[in-house]
Amino acid sequence: MSASISPLAPKFIPEVPPVPGVTFATAEAGVRYKNRTDVLLVSLAKGTTVAGVTTRSLCPSAPVEWCREALKKGKARGLVVNSGNANAFTGQKGRESTALTADIAAQALGCKPSEIFLASTGVIGEPLDATKFVGVLDEVAGRLAPGPWEGPARAIMTTDTFPKLATAQVPFGNTTVTLAGIAKGAGMIAPDMATMLSFVFTDAPIAAPVLQKLLSKLVVNSFNAVTVDGDTSTSDTLLLFATGAARAAGAPLVKDAADPVLRGFRKALKTLLGDLAEQVARDGEGARKLVRVNVTGAVSKRSARRIAFSIANSPLVKTAAAGEDANWGRVVMAVGKAGEPADRDRLAISFGPYRVAADGARDPDYDEDTVSAYMKGDVIDITVDIGLGKGSDRVLTCDLTKEYVAINGDYRS
Amino acid sequence: MSASISPLAPKFIPEVPPVPGVTFATAEAGVRYKNRTDVLLVSLAKGTTVAGVTTRSLCPSAPVEWCREALKKGKARGLVVNSGNANAFTGQKGRESTALTADIAAQALGCKPSEIFLASTGVIGEPLDATKFVGVLDEVAGRLAPGPWEGPARAIMTTDTFPKLATAQVPFGNTTVTLAGIAKGAGMIAPDMATMLSFVFTDAPIAAPVLQKLLSKLVVNSFNAVTVDGDTSTSDTLLLFATGAARAAGAPLVKDAADPVLRGFRKALKTLLGDLAEQVARDGEGARKLVRVNVTGAVSKRSARRIAFSIANSPLVKTAAAGEDANWGRVVMAVGKAGEPADRDRLAISFGPYRVAADGARDPDYDEDTVSAYMKGDVIDITVDIGLGKGSDRVLTCDLTKEYVAINGDYRS
Repeated sequence: MSASISPLAPKFIPEVPPVPGVTFATAEAGVRYKNRTDVLLVSLAKGTTVAGVTTRSLCPSAPVEWCREALKKGKARGLVVNSGNANAFTGQKGRESTALTADIAAQALGCKPSEIFLASTGVIGEPLDATKFVGVLDEVAGRLAPGPWEGPARAIMTTDTFPKLATAQVPFGNTTVTLAGIAKGAGMIAPDMATMLSFVFTDAPIAAPVLQKLLSKLVVNSFNAVTVDGDTSTSDTLLLFATGAARAAGAPLVKDAADPVLRGFRKALKTLLGDLAEQVARDGEGARKLVRVNVTGAVSKRSARRIAFSIANSPLVKTAAAGEDANWGRVVMAVGKAGEPADRDRLAISFGPYRVAADGARDPDYDEDTVSAYMKGDVIDITVDIGLGKGSDRVLTCDLTKEYVAINGDYRS
Repeated sequence: MSASISPLAPKFIPEVPPVPGVTFATAEAGVRYKNRTDVLLVSLAKGTTVAGVTTRSLCPSAPVEWCREALKKGKARGLVVNSGNANAFTGQKGRESTALTADIAAQALGCKPSEIFLASTGVIGEPLDATKFVGVLDEVAGRLAPGPWEGPARAIMTTDTFPKLATAQVPFGNTTVTLAGIAKGAGMIAPDMATMLSFVFTDAPIAAPVLQKLLSKLVVNSFNAVTVDGDTSTSDTLLLFATGAARAAGAPLVKDAADPVLRGFRKALKTLLGDLAEQVARDGEGARKLVRVNVTGAVSKRSARRIAFSIANSPLVKTAAAGEDANWGRVVMAVGKAGEPADRDRLAISFGPYRVAADGARDPDYDEDTVSAYMKGDVIDITVDIGLGKGSDRVLTCDLTKEYVAINGDYRS
């Protein structure tokens, strides 16, 4: 939607192959935007299993509540995503709208409404008129295809400046399976302009509880380790669908998370989720720099994460990154306010490979010119060693620029 | 320091009368700034008691550690404040610097170093050369005077755009006592450009433990209820000095916090602290609007405060305020991410007197034009009723503008 593509966008959009058992199409339903696709219908083969992770917000959107219910059965036949309206904070009307959307999609795909998954992103608080989907989803269902994947990735965008895709092919028993993922998100997360949505598809035959175990674990260091502005959407949704179509090629059905056949798959899924999450940070609203915050030497991983988020969410650290300023004083401040065990006189802070502070004071060998040159780069690594234990973690964020304020403040809704 | 005064500044600087037992003077020590005062020396009568509240940061500055130690005795004879250098994250050198400053001041005032209180604000991580104070404090001690108070208020400024003062005179037994307070703070709190410092003086005779009890209680709804950017300084310091000079006019010495003679004093101190805290929010870096976040109906005061801070620290709520956008969707988001008990379908949200959402959806009587007109004002009240209990709270903040990013990002240190 934005005029210019983020300077941090990947150099090219990856070629994503078809995933057996998955077909899709997009359309212009006119929910809010004009002259762009805003609805995605995905059809999933019979027997598709599903796992999901949704927002921790205590005020979730109607589609999030719908997905939570549908996830209990672990079976999926379809997915409908719309952009332009989040169907969040819409009360009883919102619930009716999700039910109607699921009904329409179930009819179009010939399945039960409870096998349809839903996600919406866009304006919050305005009722979503699901009757707009009546003819549209029928029409879309008539032209489902296994590609190209850029269509779905574009249809779900809001303030995103580039479509986000990732893929992998890995051995699975005696055959090979495919993974394909799309994501959207630019603010983390403006409820009326953004939200983090991601959908990953595979033809691997994996039972729903195993899928869920994999996803719940791997989200921790991917999507849950990214922040743009510390604001959590009412609509964040990550779904992982496994059609099982690879069984026809001899792939074994996996019912145990410890099954060694999963080894390559787990690794590929981890990489794919990390890739998509990084793309979200690279498309942070107004972002000009990707900032990786690394914390080592904390008393635990949990403590390291809290310190890392305290740094990554600090407006002063983020504006310093925008100003290409190796301002370790602000990093000390953010460590101090995290409320986690820290000893000022043991802290060490580096920007990239350059240590700027150690033992509670400026590093005497610190060379300002070298560090200044480093700060001009697209990617900034901030590393803090707490010096107390073995807990470490990393989170991704971006800088805070005037463009962020312009995107979120220069208008009247 | 800034070119233009905040549009939210009070219309006039209050006339603050002398406080018996308190004299002061300021000077240009050249710590960092040129052509402005940057050091304040306050002399306090024998018998002065003191109470204090300091930053919750786990990486406090050297002067904060010094004050914490000195507060244990509850006695004060002098205060030295410098701007330009925070003496924070300066290791052993920082500790030596505080000791040297206290020595110099104690010599100048004829008291023990442990009776000297210290505060520094400015750049973090650079050693503070206390030898700069050697001749200066002696010279300053030669021209101590009981006014005018604007001098001290200006000497402690960093990115503040106006000096912050407040005063009151209240009955105390059969006589009248005076309160005078100064404060500085603009980011809450950029460690290298800002910090929240406040010093309050009175001639009321009050024992140190009683002073401490009063201050600890009243800071909760004043300085601890203000945020500009959610960033906590390494140097935040609030000190309350009571010279006891009013005993000469017949004021009783108060040794019990329940003493009814304190009634008027407590109320006046509460108002004065609230006034100074609001001035800090009104001078928030880049602020164009004062935002008051009111939460009612939470399960407890503590819960109400957490929800209020989640709203007040949300970049999306703050940019919406800057854009004069009654974006209640972002308020719902901030409630949802607070992690406190909340039920989406019971929330009610108002901007000023106008209710925009209730029962989990937009208020059907909401009139956009009326609310838009309200959003153009200098002061925005956001009120959220959680609908679950009786806990309520209020915190103050300001909007997030491009000027905030410019102040904190448009430079290389």
